[in-house]
Amino acid sequence: MRPEIRPFHAMTIGAAAFRMQEAGEPVIHMEYGQPSARPPEAVMDAARAMLDDGVKGYWESDELKSLIAGSYSELHGSTVAPENVILTCGASPALSLALMTAFDPGARIAMARPGYVAHRNVVTGLHMHPVELPCDAATGFQLTASMLAGLDPAPDGVILASPANPTGSIIPRMEMEKIADLCRERNIRIISDEIYIRLTYGEPAASISEFTGDAFIVNSFSKYYVMPGWRLGWVVVPEEHRERAVAYMSNFFLTPPSLSQEAGIASFRCTEELDALIGVYRRNRQMLLEKLPALGMTEMAPPDGAFYIYGRVDQFTDDSRDLCLELLKDTGVATASGVDFDPVEGHRFMRFSFAVTEQEVAQALERITPWFTSKL
Amino acid sequence: MRPEIRPFHAMTIGAAAFRMQEAGEPVIHMEYGQPSARPPEAVMDAARAMLDDGVKGYWESDELKSLIAGSYSELHGSTVAPENVILTCGASPALSLALMTAFDPGARIAMARPGYVAHRNVVTGLHMHPVELPCDAATGFQLTASMLAGLDPAPDGVILASPANPTGSIIPRMEMEKIADLCRERNIRIISDEIYIRLTYGEPAASISEFTGDAFIVNSFSKYYVMPGWRLGWVVVPEEHRERAVAYMSNFFLTPPSLSQEAGIASFRCTEELDALIGVYRRNRQMLLEKLPALGMTEMAPPDGAFYIYGRVDQFTDDSRDLCLELLKDTGVATASGVDFDPVEGHRFMRFSFAVTEQEVAQALERITPWFTSKL
Repeated sequence: MRPEIRPFHAMTIGAAAFRMQEAGEPVIHMEYGQPSARPPEAVMDAARAMLDDGVKGYWESDELKSLIAGSYSELHGSTVAPENVILTCGASPALSLALMTAFDPGARIAMARPGYVAHRNVVTGLHMHPVELPCDAATGFQLTASMLAGLDPAPDGVILASPANPTGSIIPRMEMEKIADLCRERNIRIISDEIYIRLTYGEPAASISEFTGDAFIVNSFSKYYVMPGWRLGWVVVPEEHRERAVAYMSNFFLTPPSLSQEAGIASFRCTEELDALIGVYRRNRQMLLEKLPALGMTEMAPPDGAFYIYGRVDQFTDDSRDLCLELLKDTGVATASGVDFDPVEGHRFMRFSFAVTEQEVAQALERITPWFTSKL
Repeated sequence: MRPEIRPFHAMTIGAAAFRMQEAGEPVIHMEYGQPSARPPEAVMDAARAMLDDGVKGYWESDELKSLIAGSYSELHGSTVAPENVILTCGASPALSLALMTAFDPGARIAMARPGYVAHRNVVTGLHMHPVELPCDAATGFQLTASMLAGLDPAPDGVILASPANPTGSIIPRMEMEKIADLCRERNIRIISDEIYIRLTYGEPAASISEFTGDAFIVNSFSKYYVMPGWRLGWVVVPEEHRERAVAYMSNFFLTPPSLSQEAGIASFRCTEELDALIGVYRRNRQMLLEKLPALGMTEMAPPDGAFYIYGRVDQFTDDSRDLCLELLKDTGVATASGVDFDPVEGHRFMRFSFAVTEQEVAQALERITPWFTSKL
């Protein structure tokens, strides 16, 4: 029987926010995980140049694959062969490509709960079975090697996400090494979603490539590179899976957008400008961390990376979907309910995305402070 | 067990052709189904304007959905609701979206052989079973209602392609109506690949939307709209499948590229310029039809649409892969072997794509004429 998967609830909020905006109300978008900053001008210029010279047809840029492969050595001291980098139309197709390449229907795939909604849904949609590991503040809402060790039988695969969505929390380096070791022993295939890996506010996040060459690594240009609408991502595949992954890619997806690849190449020359954006997120994060607890948000995950704050709001509501819609209606601040990320506990939680400007965060706090305070 | 699917052999030829080109040899690319023409300048300008104004993040253009929906009424007199149009990153993801939405693993999906390689491979990759209907010149290499009627038990679905790749042949309007009726009776879900529907050289091709509202219709901007590297396509979904299809889209693919959507909107204002390209293809087709039979190509499919000539070349070879590689090496003309399209008979066939300039076709004929003649 075909599995039931649902559209993101954040999209309902997003649609309502858009309607308000159309009606002339000033909406602050903190519901989606997409940066509002414009890519560096050099990136735009690369796209402009390709428009002038002619947009390549079906194309995979070897240069871009090499740049991506090289970044693993530069940032993580690990070795990735350019030919094991497969370019995709974003992280979502990268994840489904990895799952289809590595597993069959019926496979059991472990993952943390809360977690990114598409992890669970794509696994389900491919007729595999999510094995959700309930995680709370005690482990930074992240799964651990000992949780994986406790699964009997061992799952076929596990999805890691560090930094994670919706929490921003990081798997500590030593724990990630333990996970890699355990997965080697128990023959569990790792898919590591590293889309937020360059967005951290304390210790840098470890890449699974530092501990094993057997993992699939999913990443994209939508977060650090602020190119969400360009639909460009990649998956690093283990050597033994390359041929199969290439076959799946060419049949299911063909190639990623040529303009985006050309722009992506240019973005490797813009690290300074892109790193400066992390400074903005850092200040946004600080503002929220200073205010939200006083407004009644509790059990906040440690937002060591990504651009999210996830916390418990059940003193206000028994369904955070209603809370988010009401908050939007009353203040024009759009946020995401936890239900997208955790089907069991999520109705007690909500998520703020702070990949917006500092002005917007300041303004959002001004608007929501009296609103929450009046409810305390 | 995970199914084996293979990369396109045309990619091997393409890679060899690219290496020759890098080495300074003048290659004529007739191996891929991608037009070499540049999109109209108004399309480029729309992309330029969005680069200046800011590239939208995750976005689905309602305007584009309306334009696409409207084109069915304009071209085919059929009614498609804009909200049943789902925008995708090209026809390949559109096909997999349709299959995942409509069927479960184990489903039996009928299709013509020869046919587009990804039809068979995506069905196989999703753990469904292709039911290949061997077709030859007698039916224009197309499946018929009576072939479908002869299947016992009835398949769960059928993929139609008219005009088809690799043959360019069209399912006659009356036959398509019979197929629609039969599928209604026998409860067979239709997926109609209409990517070449606007490229015809005689009678216009019928859309399945003229006969039923229950079909999935796959299409893209890569052929008529000459935007292959832009990765933009769509699938029209039956009303009852919309919610599920939207959920699959948002989890597996998220959104298509924003720049491409903006450019796609503009391309609806460029019909005159795009129709003029059909004139070029028509003349290319004529040149090839006049010459190829004398060079020894037989059993050619009627190329009533698309931009391909597919024919039998087994008087020269018992493996057309070798023939294509040799032809490339000796003449710099890249073509596709039939093995990508027909695992049984394909080694006897080859395909020319004529979506190039008239000069290129003339030049290609000059080069290949002595080559083939010497082998006759």
